Amino acid sequence: MALIVQKYGGTSVGTTERIQAVAEKVKKFRDSGDDVVVVVSAMSGETNRLISLADAISKDPVPREMDVLVSTGEQVTIALLSMALQQIDCDAMSMTGGQVRILTDQSHMKARIQDIDESRMREALSAGKVVVVAGFQGVDEDHNITTLGRGGSDTTAVALAAALKADECQIYTDVDGVYTTDPRVVDSARRMEKVTFEEMIEMASLGSKVLQIRAVEFAGKYSVPLRVLSSFEDGPGTLITIDSEENMEQAAVSGIAFNRDEAKLTLVGVPDIPGVASKILRPISDKNIEVDMIVQNVGLDKKTDFTFTVHRNDYKKAKAVLEEVCEKLGAERAAGDNDIAKVSIVGVGMRSHAGVATKMFEALSDEGINIQMISTSEIKISVVIDEKYLELAVRTLHGAFDLAQEH
Amino acid sequence: MALIVQKYGGTSVGTTERIQAVAEKVKKFRDSGDDVVVVVSAMSGETNRLISLADAISKDPVPREMDVLVSTGEQVTIALLSMALQQIDCDAMSMTGGQVRILTDQSHMKARIQDIDESRMREALSAGKVVVVAGFQGVDEDHNITTLGRGGSDTTAVALAAALKADECQIYTDVDGVYTTDPRVVDSARRMEKVTFEEMIEMASLGSKVLQIRAVEFAGKYSVPLRVLSSFEDGPGTLITIDSEENMEQAAVSGIAFNRDEAKLTLVGVPDIPGVASKILRPISDKNIEVDMIVQNVGLDKKTDFTFTVHRNDYKKAKAVLEEVCEKLGAERAAGDNDIAKVSIVGVGMRSHAGVATKMFEALSDEGINIQMISTSEIKISVVIDEKYLELAVRTLHGAFDLAQEH
Repeated sequence: MALIVQKYGGTSVGTTERIQAVAEKVKKFRDSGDDVVVVVSAMSGETNRLISLADAISKDPVPREMDVLVSTGEQVTIALLSMALQQIDCDAMSMTGGQVRILTDQSHMKARIQDIDESRMREALSAGKVVVVAGFQGVDEDHNITTLGRGGSDTTAVALAAALKADECQIYTDVDGVYTTDPRVVDSARRMEKVTFEEMIEMASLGSKVLQIRAVEFAGKYSVPLRVLSSFEDGPGTLITIDSEENMEQAAVSGIAFNRDEAKLTLVGVPDIPGVASKILRPISDKNIEVDMIVQNVGLDKKTDFTFTVHRNDYKKAKAVLEEVCEKLGAERAAGDNDIAKVSIVGVGMRSHAGVATKMFEALSDEGINIQMISTSEIKISVVIDEKYLELAVRTLHGAFDLAQEH
Repeated sequence: MALIVQKYGGTSVGTTERIQAVAEKVKKFRDSGDDVVVVVSAMSGETNRLISLADAISKDPVPREMDVLVSTGEQVTIALLSMALQQIDCDAMSMTGGQVRILTDQSHMKARIQDIDESRMREALSAGKVVVVAGFQGVDEDHNITTLGRGGSDTTAVALAAALKADECQIYTDVDGVYTTDPRVVDSARRMEKVTFEEMIEMASLGSKVLQIRAVEFAGKYSVPLRVLSSFEDGPGTLITIDSEENMEQAAVSGIAFNRDEAKLTLVGVPDIPGVASKILRPISDKNIEVDMIVQNVGLDKKTDFTFTVHRNDYKKAKAVLEEVCEKLGAERAAGDNDIAKVSIVGVGMRSHAGVATKMFEALSDEGINIQMISTSEIKISVVIDEKYLELAVRTLHGAFDLAQEH
């Protein structure tokens, strides 16, 4: 008999019929003898409906009251799912974040979990009940309702699994697992049986938005076995595990991630003096623009080109800032490019395999794809290329590293 | 500086615009120096929307989960009203029933308030905030969410006023006060400046559904000055006060109430033996049919006619039961009449004024209205008449007791 924490997102509980389908799924686990804690999001559309009510009243609603408002979305779902479970003779009990006592800090709308009291859940589980917990919410020490920010239900599920030392935390989504790359781009993309937390974080941060990064980090930190499965069809999904020799696939590269949401900015001909990087980036971050990749090459003539990427939405703002900086630093000019894409190969196996980068660059070069920027981490190599080559690059790399085959 | 508890019902907070209007109203009181606690209902339509979600899932939803579900309605309103108040620079803080700690018994969907912790509200009031409390809800000692049943927001307001020893509890509705009778029936019906709790209870139970009876009883028990006012227009409304000589209007009769929702049933020719009344009524109450008026006259020939009224919706069911009883008791026949109405005169002054009943019966008789049943209490005389005479009877009595004039 195992203890399983399951999480169902907004689409999975989007209608009363879907809530009934989730109840059937939960009951199957319960009937097979498992103890089950279910974490649910608000029915899809509900959170937006609530936010639009707030928008009609205030341009800048008080965060404390936003949390009181939007937390009702999940509360509705826990009540309905508990009813649906009891309707099919599966004893169940709903709990809000406050009722479990998911203690968070006081940062409304982006609170962080500090502690979870597991006693009330244990009590209900011992009484043979399925425990249905509202995701995304908690309370601070003064009993104020807090929310963890959008997508926070994944984090709730992982945190509950950690607190209860659950055997597995299952995240049900509208995809049936984590793929070697986006199947819409590469036909032969393959669902992975297993992936490491580190790989998952790199994949997630690059747009494979199956799971919230924060939830994956949390799961890694507390060694919670995490599984991504489909709400709508049966299957084993993908298990996200701790990196250990025995259970890892042997391939150097596990997957290809990509991202079209970035834009590239370059300050050309910057005098190469100490502290110049911060002089360029400080005005950018002062405008709350997040920077992703940064590349600087020292030239021979005491001048350098400084290049970085930002989210495409911030491109115009960043370009304007950069033009001011250009003048101030006496650089030659500020250039920019909106039509770029980032492609990355990800894999823990990279650590011990030499030549992975070379193989990547050669494969791209063979297709005549020019690499504009390169950035590497221990388990990832990212390149920036012209956006029009994105699909070609992803397919080429998927083939070059033979990802359609299990290793 | 006074402490005022205000309650706004579902219609008053039915849209975001109306919530903003309520905020303006609340701010006026606050600006004039009063401390204000506001109790709100769910936005009109919201409770029904939530119930229909439950209905789609279960024919007989678990009461505990129904309370988790429907309590979100008021939670949405407190958040929105608090935002609206802060938007116009009126500091405010929302509190759910659980956050105030409105402690109730464990009877889900019809819980009764046992205790109110006033400390959190006092703290917020001391900090200069308007406190916005979710009506209709509380928590039991195990932190389960409970609701007080439909219309329970009035009760919440009165209970908070009692706990806080508020100077006044103001119930904002869609009428501007309590009238001597229904203005739609009698043009000259007059808004009363004051009415006693006892009169209000009699009026309310007869269909003047301005206030929930339970709330009025509660206010009477704890001597909370209660005022009924309009949400939509300014005015003094009607103050509901404790019966005391000095502040009472001097008239014997304060108002005329009426009710078309009843039906009359008669068992004719019942053998007049001890215990016959319970033999007739037991099978009726066993079917969960509530009985209102009961009249029994002992006849000369050891036979009696036994007459009572039930809600019109229960008429057919009651008639069927009565026919069985008729056979069992050897009575002559079971008769019934759906087309009746009940008209009552209500007034604490009645106690000390002789001849009120006579005056009532004479006035009706002068108009040729036949009285089918009579029932009296200390401050009320009710008669059952043919429904077609209802308006005539109400107008006649309103005139006979000179209610258009203040006394």
